[in-house]
Order: sequence, then C-alpha cells, then structure tokens
Amino acid sequence: MKLVLLRHGESEWNKENLFTGWMDVDLSETGKAEAASAGITLKQKGYDFDVCYTSYLKRAIHTLNLALDEMDRVWLPVVKSWKLNERHYGTLQGLNKSETAERYGEEQVKIWRRSYDIAPPLLKEEDERNPRFQEQYRQEKCEILPLGESLKDTIARVVPYYNEVILKDMMAGKRVLIAAHGNSLRALMKYLEDMSPEDILNVNLPTGIPLVYELDEEGKFISKEYLGDAEYVKAKIEKVSAQGKVTIE
Amino acid sequence: MKLVLLRHGESEWNKENLFTGWMDVDLSETGKAEAASAGITLKQKGYDFDVCYTSYLKRAIHTLNLALDEMDRVWLPVVKSWKLNERHYGTLQGLNKSETAERYGEEQVKIWRRSYDIAPPLLKEEDERNPRFQEQYRQEKCEILPLGESLKDTIARVVPYYNEVILKDMMAGKRVLIAAHGNSLRALMKYLEDMSPEDILNVNLPTGIPLVYELDEEGKFISKEYLGDAEYVKAKIEKVSAQGKVTIE
Repeated sequence: MKLVLLRHGESEWNKENLFTGWMDVDLSETGKAEAASAGITLKQKGYDFDVCYTSYLKRAIHTLNLALDEMDRVWLPVVKSWKLNERHYGTLQGLNKSETAERYGEEQVKIWRRSYDIAPPLLKEEDERNPRFQEQYRQEKCEILPLGESLKDTIARVVPYYNEVILKDMMAGKRVLIAAHGNSLRALMKYLEDMSPEDILNVNLPTGIPLVYELDEEGKFISKEYLGDAEYVKAKIEKVSAQGKVTIE
Repeated sequence: MKLVLLRHGESEWNKENLFTGWMDVDLSETGKAEAASAGITLKQKGYDFDVCYTSYLKRAIHTLNLALDEMDRVWLPVVKSWKLNERHYGTLQGLNKSETAERYGEEQVKIWRRSYDIAPPLLKEEDERNPRFQEQYRQEKCEILPLGESLKDTIARVVPYYNEVILKDMMAGKRVLIAAHGNSLRALMKYLEDMSPEDILNVNLPTGIPLVYELDEEGKFISKEYLGDAEYVKAKIEKVSAQGKVTIE
C-alpha cells in the first residue's frame, strides 16, 4: 500500500513569522505555486488517487485543490476533518516571535517549540480564538476541541483518525492523498515509522513536496520517498531544517 | 426547508458557442467572477449551509469552490456525483452551432435542442468521448453511463439522486447548496415545481444567480426566489432567455 502526504506551502502568516496553529490563514502566492508544483510532480510521476483527506483549514484545503487541478482530479472525493488540523498553539496564535519572547522569555518559547509533551499556554474559555466560537467546529462537542496542544496531544487525535478512518480506506484498496500541516503530518510520520519522541522532534517535512510511504498489507512501514527532482528536494529539506530553528509553525 | 441551486457561470466553450455536455471544460474568467459574485450574494443575504453537492465536471466544482471561498466556507463537506452532470449531448459535444447545422440541418438541431424526449445522436461505444474511457467514471458500471441524453433522460438520473441522497440530508435538517448545470438543475426544477414537459422547456435558469426553493417538511414546493439585486437578476434572466434561442448548452 502507498500513502502520500503533502504539507501545505507558505501561508500569509509564515511570511510574517506569526504562530498560526488553528488560525485560518490562506496561502501566500508562493504557497499556491508550491501546491501547484506538487500536483505537477504527482502527475508526472504517474500517481493517482481514489480519495483525498485534508483538514478544516483553508491553507491545506487550497493546497489540495490546487494540486488536484494540476492532476486533472478535482472530481475525486475529498474528506475534511479537523483531526488533521495543525497543532493548536493556544495563546501563542497570532503572536510573532519577538512578541512571544518578550512576553514569555526566550527560554520558555524554546521549550514550547522543541518539547514533545509540553503544551503552550491554553486559551481561556472565553477567548475569541476558542474553536467553540468558530463556525468550522459548530458540529463538534466543545469538550473535545483543544485550547492548546503539545505535539503529543496532536498525535493523540491524528493517529486514531488515521487508524479508524484513513487506514480503512487504504485496506479497502483505495489510494490515499493527505494534504495537511507540519505537525499533523509529523504526528503521522512518527506513528508510521514508530519513531521515539526525540526522533520526531528532529524531523522537518518540507512544504509542497509529496512524501510517499510504502506500507505492507497491515500498514507497517517499508520505506519512504520524497517526490521531485533530487537536488530540489534536498535543498528544500535543508532549508526547512534550518528554518526549523528560527521560524514558527 | 430551503434548497439553494446555483448554475455555473460562463465556460470557455460557452464563449465559443460549442456544445459542451459532459466535456470537462473550465470556467472562463467571466464565469469565475460570476461564481465569486454568487458567494458574495449568499453571504450578504445571510445564507449558510451544512453540505454541498456538485457534479464531476470542473466548471461546476470550481463554481462551488469559488462561491465557498467568498462565504468563508471551504471547510464544508462537498459531495460530488456524475448524476448532477450536464445533459449528455452525444455526438454534438465539441461541435459549434454552424457545424452542427451543416451536418444535420437547422431543423434537426432545433428538434434536439427544444424537444423534451428526443436524444441527440448517441456516441458510438468506441468514441473517445464515451464516458467509459474517462477517468472520472472509472468506478461506475459502463452500462449505466449515457452516450447521449434527452432532457427526459437527464431527469431520469437527477431526480432519483435527489430523492435518495440529497432530500435525505434535507430531511435530516441539513441546509443544502447544489452547484451544477443548466439542464441538471432544470431537471430538478421540473420535479420540484411539478412542471409539464412544455413548461420546463421555457424555463431558463440564469448563470451564477442563487435560486432559493422553499419546500414544506415533505419536500413539496412552496415558493422560489432568485437572490441578488432585483434589476440585475431581471436583466440576467432576460439575457439567458434570449440566449436560449441561439446558444447551446
């Protein structure tokens, strides 16, 4: 079985170096071009799909739509779920790096960003950024919606969704494409490759580069491969890896 | 219960006056603007939805996506079905009006376009335009895919899909938006308003103007209303009505 993961391209807030999380910010023009480029690569390499998954956030949905446009596959079924949303960044959402460092201290920010199981400060219930006040989540029970998450918390919602919904489609022979976010996809990578918490913290998924997992018939990891011109992919991974030290998700 | 119908805007082939049918032609720039304008109108008038339906054809899918963008509702579930596709125009697909008249005679073309139950010449099985050769329909049994349809044939696939799938969502309290095509939506209008074959032939649904049906709890017709500035809607209906005499679907 193969599974293709696609991280959305640059968003408007990436450019301004703001913590985004569940804030519903759109792709920048660069991000749109990255998405189209991913679709062109998938088509050139002969990839096709039976069903696509994405989050409730427009930067992932638009990435998927733009890639499907290039593949001439806009008619494929698309399933959207908030379980594939980016890690929720609590009260850090909307702050830039210097504001955050000023308010909480440089060391504390590092801990939130680099730790596996420490959540950022949670939103207060009455905060307008609380998902319960956003139309996207109106069908959900408030108590299951996060007010801030560690990477571990993100994994705890992504992995069950993968096992209960996505993997079932794959087991039924469907070819699956998931367009989502840096941390929701890292959650999946950790699970698929059975990585330690330390290992996953060092993984940086490049934006707009399809990542193909080959899995056995039970869903166990066999191999993975980034799609695209080898030099371009290498440069992109190095760029993301360097950025990982200074930019914010 | 309310149900909103939205006919896609101008396509690349509308401009060139070609029979389109199931040919998967994209929106023109004008068509994209019409779609966005429909979304703005729906938002301004306070409309919201729980689920959207569209066809397998990109001019309808893109119309829906562009309208949802304007409504900030790209995260809504979207169900795609070929049952909502445009009437299949058989061998006329891809021909322009003068070619068609030359090949079959002016009178015959009128009959195909204005009659209720006369299908255009059917595609031959081996014709590359046969839906069985197109990726969109690869999951379907060949024998149920049309090679050409009368309006009556289109109704015979649209109405069961409405009753068995869409109406169920509405009965469950969901607010439904359908983005589709001139003839698949006319099929639905005929059914909802219980029109005669003669009456439906005189109905022209304007492009990019949301049409709101109010139905009782059993789905029976109460009233309908076009959304938008009254003068603009009136002009648009008149324009489509006049075009109906010379242009092709």
